[in-house]
Amino acid sequence: MDKNEINIGLIGFGTIGAGVVEIFNKNQDILSQKVGKQVNLKKVADIDITTDRGVKIDSELLTTDANGVLENDDIDIIVELIGGYEPARTFILKAMENGKHVVSANKALIAKHWEELIATANENNVRFNFEASVGGGIPLLQPINESLAANRFEAIYGIMNGTANYILTKMSSKGSKFNDVLKVAQEKGYAEADPTFDIEGHDTAQKLIILTKLAFGEYVPQENFYVEGISQINPEDIEFALKELNYVLKLLGIAKKTQDGLEIRVHPTFIPKDHLLASVNNVYNAVYAVGDFVGPVMLYGQGAGRMATASAVVGDCLDIIFNESKKISYGPIKSQINKIKDIGDIISKYYISLNVLDKPGVLQTITKILEENGISIESITQKTSLENKEVPIIIVSHETKEDNIKQSIAKINDLNNVKDDIKLIRILED
Amino acid sequence: MDKNEINIGLIGFGTIGAGVVEIFNKNQDILSQKVGKQVNLKKVADIDITTDRGVKIDSELLTTDANGVLENDDIDIIVELIGGYEPARTFILKAMENGKHVVSANKALIAKHWEELIATANENNVRFNFEASVGGGIPLLQPINESLAANRFEAIYGIMNGTANYILTKMSSKGSKFNDVLKVAQEKGYAEADPTFDIEGHDTAQKLIILTKLAFGEYVPQENFYVEGISQINPEDIEFALKELNYVLKLLGIAKKTQDGLEIRVHPTFIPKDHLLASVNNVYNAVYAVGDFVGPVMLYGQGAGRMATASAVVGDCLDIIFNESKKISYGPIKSQINKIKDIGDIISKYYISLNVLDKPGVLQTITKILEENGISIESITQKTSLENKEVPIIIVSHETKEDNIKQSIAKINDLNNVKDDIKLIRILED
Repeated sequence: MDKNEINIGLIGFGTIGAGVVEIFNKNQDILSQKVGKQVNLKKVADIDITTDRGVKIDSELLTTDANGVLENDDIDIIVELIGGYEPARTFILKAMENGKHVVSANKALIAKHWEELIATANENNVRFNFEASVGGGIPLLQPINESLAANRFEAIYGIMNGTANYILTKMSSKGSKFNDVLKVAQEKGYAEADPTFDIEGHDTAQKLIILTKLAFGEYVPQENFYVEGISQINPEDIEFALKELNYVLKLLGIAKKTQDGLEIRVHPTFIPKDHLLASVNNVYNAVYAVGDFVGPVMLYGQGAGRMATASAVVGDCLDIIFNESKKISYGPIKSQINKIKDIGDIISKYYISLNVLDKPGVLQTITKILEENGISIESITQKTSLENKEVPIIIVSHETKEDNIKQSIAKINDLNNVKDDIKLIRILED
Repeated sequence: MDKNEINIGLIGFGTIGAGVVEIFNKNQDILSQKVGKQVNLKKVADIDITTDRGVKIDSELLTTDANGVLENDDIDIIVELIGGYEPARTFILKAMENGKHVVSANKALIAKHWEELIATANENNVRFNFEASVGGGIPLLQPINESLAANRFEAIYGIMNGTANYILTKMSSKGSKFNDVLKVAQEKGYAEADPTFDIEGHDTAQKLIILTKLAFGEYVPQENFYVEGISQINPEDIEFALKELNYVLKLLGIAKKTQDGLEIRVHPTFIPKDHLLASVNNVYNAVYAVGDFVGPVMLYGQGAGRMATASAVVGDCLDIIFNESKKISYGPIKSQINKIKDIGDIISKYYISLNVLDKPGVLQTITKILEENGISIESITQKTSLENKEVPIIIVSHETKEDNIKQSIAKINDLNNVKDDIKLIRILED
């Protein structure tokens, strides 16, 4: 920008907004030095400007008039941190139409209204940055979209929800039940009062949509892919897989290019204990990406939280100040994907756990069903018990098509001696 | 750049140079799409243009006349991949003086001639990118220097040498001796015939110089800080620390801001087994950085190799094409460091291993020396033996000044019953 002074207007003075104010309080000197211009936080708009956010702020910056900020000619960059669809969408579009660059951390909005937001930014020749929308403070979208742009990506595997990762980590280390850990997570502030969005995979799915567009050039709305959460996971399966099979359970967002199309899905996934993603614990996030030249890279850090997310938001502002006129595409210009695969068509290894009445021939009947459906078994474990008691059976399949597994499970479920809570967990071995 | 066509001149057709050619063979379409301009590899200069590098290349691109490439008006970006100090330095300076942007992977040159190279780039208004010089293909310098520029960095810990990390990983998993693993590494091509540069920490030191400048704004030449390699490490210490203390040994480059100055050092370091860096194995590299807002982030991938390093080199070219006139500083403009600490002034925990003749009172004498030097002991382990035999003692200290430890060790070394191969390994607990 040619001006010697850059003014930022912040809309949404919530958790992350307060973090941005804190950065300006503490590090404004290094921001201004870095870009060689005075960088100011000029206005902070929120419907509530009286509640104490725990940060020092000049009361003259505060306003309840968001539209005034959007129309203020002195403001160069609008930072949208309201979250949700409206009025965030309207505000962002209006900012762009007013010729202002936009920074947002709003993954829900970006994942859903991708095409409209990008088109409006392009039409108005403004920059639109949203590093904080995926992986919080982790430098993630810039590396995928720019530093690694010489690559065709082969796969992206992401641990992108801190709440789910915290719960799985504690279930694994303590053998606790899902509901018990969730309660602790809620007490510690790591889970919302209504945790559905995080634990059922929707948050991960929204982030995966953004990553998939940047890595593969294809925008896939959430209704077009499979999303499964972690609320049905038993600690017994986590424990067995860790001790007997050397697998760790993570809620992964997966986008993987195969010969017959893109696999895009969110579900709990067993990964080998020595895979680096398996060491990403508690509320931390990481994305493991594989490019045809760079090979595997992993980017790790805090995926949420006031300070870390604000770091990415302000980093986005600096990037815009450096490159106001940069015409960068989001992902490859041409989609590298011929089609999106149905979940039934994906190829995976599977972990199947079920309880049977321990009667002669049960195991034989089950293995026969699997074989008839073309499924090759890697291992099968049946715990012994007193006759006629319920015992768990754990089956690990070799790679097979998911439809084959689903059909087998339906048949196994119909058997007399099988209880009806068969668990199916996908295994990643890449 | 306003032109519709961007021409790149490559000087140095070695391992990484061949990787760059391979990227243009396979992915030129996505490069050109990404920047919206035709991106060409226009010339490839090397003194040897006849040896087959295993990549397809149009013979008209090849030349032995590097100066011709540097003076070619059609060429916009020079990629220097010769390595070493000369003629690389002369070529880069000449390219800049001729108004060409420069991309280099040459860590040795950049670490040594930092000031001259940056000044010449600035004087000539050209970009100078060197992402591949640290961490090979890992997006590392861009995130530290730009995405995370809202932070004041607190510390950088890097596993930045694949050879050393491979050797330590195998010593740890197999209990093998240093020299035996080195031999295997040489056979596998993971270590050079003369491995000194990698195993004695010099390669890590050069990379740390570049990272330290970007994170803290301070250029510290290699002669001004402590560098220790891994050739004196015993498998017994690795095994004991892993089994009894839950520590894993890594060769780390460390730059850490403290109240009384910057600690900058390279040495084998014990880190807690559950630290994410402890899971970075074999030839992989990772940098773990801590910012005041973002908290810890880790960036992981292949730190060397033809394909991965070429990915970073071409990524650097794309960044220049997007932002030809970007005036970005390397690191914070003002140094955030008041002084560089001597190694004797650093504060650390220490692992001390020594062999003593198992006579009454030896242990007591040693602990007395430590106490007299103000060192508080966290744990001490003496293996029992038959009287008068040599036994190992392992001491773990609490945090203390390194000078205190060194003085104690000198005194312990003078004791009659102590053998003179006392090992001192620093422990990182952050």
